Amino acid sequence: MAIYLDNNATTRTAPEAVAAMLPFFTTHFGNASSLHGFGAEAAAAMRQARRQVQALIGAAQDHEIVFTSGGTEANTTAIRAALAVQAGRGEIVTSTVEHPAILQLCDGLERFEGVKVHRIAVDGDGRLDLDAYRASLSDRVAVVSLMWANNETGTIFPVDGLAAMAHRVGALFHSDAVQAAGKLPLRLAETEIDMLSLSAHKFHGPKGVGALYLRKGTAFRPLLRGGKQERGRRAGTENVPGIVGAGVAAERALARLDEAPRIAALRDRLEQGILSRIGRVLRLGDLRDRLPNTAALAFDYAEGEAILMKLNAAGIAASAGSACASGAMEPSHVIRAMKVPFTAAHGAIRFSLSAETTAEDIDRVIEVLPGIVDDLRGLTPFWAEAQGGRHVA
Amino acid sequence: MAIYLDNNATTRTAPEAVAAMLPFFTTHFGNASSLHGFGAEAAAAMRQARRQVQALIGAAQDHEIVFTSGGTEANTTAIRAALAVQAGRGEIVTSTVEHPAILQLCDGLERFEGVKVHRIAVDGDGRLDLDAYRASLSDRVAVVSLMWANNETGTIFPVDGLAAMAHRVGALFHSDAVQAAGKLPLRLAETEIDMLSLSAHKFHGPKGVGALYLRKGTAFRPLLRGGKQERGRRAGTENVPGIVGAGVAAERALARLDEAPRIAALRDRLEQGILSRIGRVLRLGDLRDRLPNTAALAFDYAEGEAILMKLNAAGIAASAGSACASGAMEPSHVIRAMKVPFTAAHGAIRFSLSAETTAEDIDRVIEVLPGIVDDLRGLTPFWAEAQGGRHVA
Repeated sequence: MAIYLDNNATTRTAPEAVAAMLPFFTTHFGNASSLHGFGAEAAAAMRQARRQVQALIGAAQDHEIVFTSGGTEANTTAIRAALAVQAGRGEIVTSTVEHPAILQLCDGLERFEGVKVHRIAVDGDGRLDLDAYRASLSDRVAVVSLMWANNETGTIFPVDGLAAMAHRVGALFHSDAVQAAGKLPLRLAETEIDMLSLSAHKFHGPKGVGALYLRKGTAFRPLLRGGKQERGRRAGTENVPGIVGAGVAAERALARLDEAPRIAALRDRLEQGILSRIGRVLRLGDLRDRLPNTAALAFDYAEGEAILMKLNAAGIAASAGSACASGAMEPSHVIRAMKVPFTAAHGAIRFSLSAETTAEDIDRVIEVLPGIVDDLRGLTPFWAEAQGGRHVA
Repeated sequence: MAIYLDNNATTRTAPEAVAAMLPFFTTHFGNASSLHGFGAEAAAAMRQARRQVQALIGAAQDHEIVFTSGGTEANTTAIRAALAVQAGRGEIVTSTVEHPAILQLCDGLERFEGVKVHRIAVDGDGRLDLDAYRASLSDRVAVVSLMWANNETGTIFPVDGLAAMAHRVGALFHSDAVQAAGKLPLRLAETEIDMLSLSAHKFHGPKGVGALYLRKGTAFRPLLRGGKQERGRRAGTENVPGIVGAGVAAERALARLDEAPRIAALRDRLEQGILSRIGRVLRLGDLRDRLPNTAALAFDYAEGEAILMKLNAAGIAASAGSACASGAMEPSHVIRAMKVPFTAAHGAIRFSLSAETTAEDIDRVIEVLPGIVDDLRGLTPFWAEAQGGRHVA
């Protein structure tokens, strides 16, 4: 049985979620907008799912939840809406370590639509440069978009305080909480956050379903217009089975939030096991404030993608912080933003755990990884050189 | 067992499609973008689904299929892309009977973004006014968007010829084929259509999955930017189970296209049964060129929504061509566009069949509907008046 440590990429859909979805494919398959019985069943199931997602994020009202097709759509909807409803404000503030769904969106808005984008830097631990953030805020800013937790390193941004700062200049505040939901307790009603993005498949719900939290009273313009679904905020026949599955997954994730210390202990066991057996390994991210499930490690003189391939051959699924772009290994934008030293930047690996991860999984990684890293380092003359040996050309 | 005659709203997901989806929730649940084995399984399944959808619509190449979250997203992506890539062209040509996903999008573009929209009228049978269409075309038009088949009446537009006309002025041509796919043979490769929208749940696939056909070489700009999924044309973690289900449904729909005559015969039996038993009923749409599965009937002096409720009470699911808006019955935009006579416009009912519809289903409708319509007509003094009786106030 393979070991899955790539839960920040996607998770296994909970069997309870799948079971809850099934009747909505073939029995209660009506269009939730239809007036007949087939539609009524679907509409009732969606109401329950909306309350389940509301509970997961601690929103004040269930209608603050707008179901979408995923995190990317939620992010795009939020940012575009904030710009559209504030014609006098043409700037966005975000960070250099956001998910590509935010960064590429901002790049496009800047390039094609004349929006000015402030990309706030982070320090070596991935923490936001607060002075730069403060300096970027003005009454020209329509929206600030800062992620709750980083997908590559697990570093947590203090979004509540950041939202309060944005509000002082009258800007809306959006947070991409795709990695935070189901991993951290969220209490939106107690924050100043206006809009927040979720993705069900990151917390053991199905792929293709997400949600946009839209605080009551927030000015808004839909990205998808057409039918009156989602109170006119997101047109299109509702993905009833997917939404039902997302609801069940949300309820389950909320109930299992207290397992975070156990998951963090497994993560720490993994990190300590690796650090004690392999030399020249750097832990990435803010070790004082990060997700309980994420270990981001950079191995000097070993290519991340090569480590990944060898782990995969050993039945272990993880993720690399670099990818082959135009024939050369290119560290991810997060690794680059953190200015990880060159010798380690190409050797970043992310292990992301879930409540399904076992101690046996962890111990297996600790067992096989030293050999893999040794093998790869043996292939490069730079490693021998760094060890004080002679560089043979 | 209830009788479902609302297949233009949504269809029962085929059990084969659900069965094919299941392993991708809990076993092959990887992110299709991941490099490890969990991701490879997902990526391979998506390749097959893409070829299955390609076959359904007769596209030349599988990469012309871009998976989306549904028809509304596909429509929005197509129209916005066409405008974005042709900066010198700021007009859209569409019709008065398009789906709200097109009409509301166009309304928004006109109101908020300065786009000029030509809405071509239809005649009493729902056929496009070709002279008006021709007159609307100029080198200012970025895109023409005309539906393949109307969701309310089943009327088919001659989209291939309409596309050729659009091309003569250098405009792109998009068709909302949400109601056509799986009901009519489509051979995109042999047409001049540049972009086309599909929705899986209209042909017994799952909700929350659609596709945009994008002819090779068509200039494009994505609506959802971020990850590199779908060759950079639609960001966001792929809905792998949904896409797999859509693929299986597409393959099945293609194989069952030859059942269209059987479905049309059932539809005709329904219409004849009703027309022979109920007076003052109007068939709506172009009777010479329409979908095989759709019967749109307007009953003089009976409210469509009231008929619907009584049918529902009798275990029959259908759809009305009018809906209660601000407390008054309002005929749909399609009914209004066709200038259906006032006495019938409020009494439109759509029966939409599928390959699962049986002769027994049809006969049951023919059995109960006369009583329902009689009862409702008995409630209004106008009916008695229309019959030559006295109007008692």
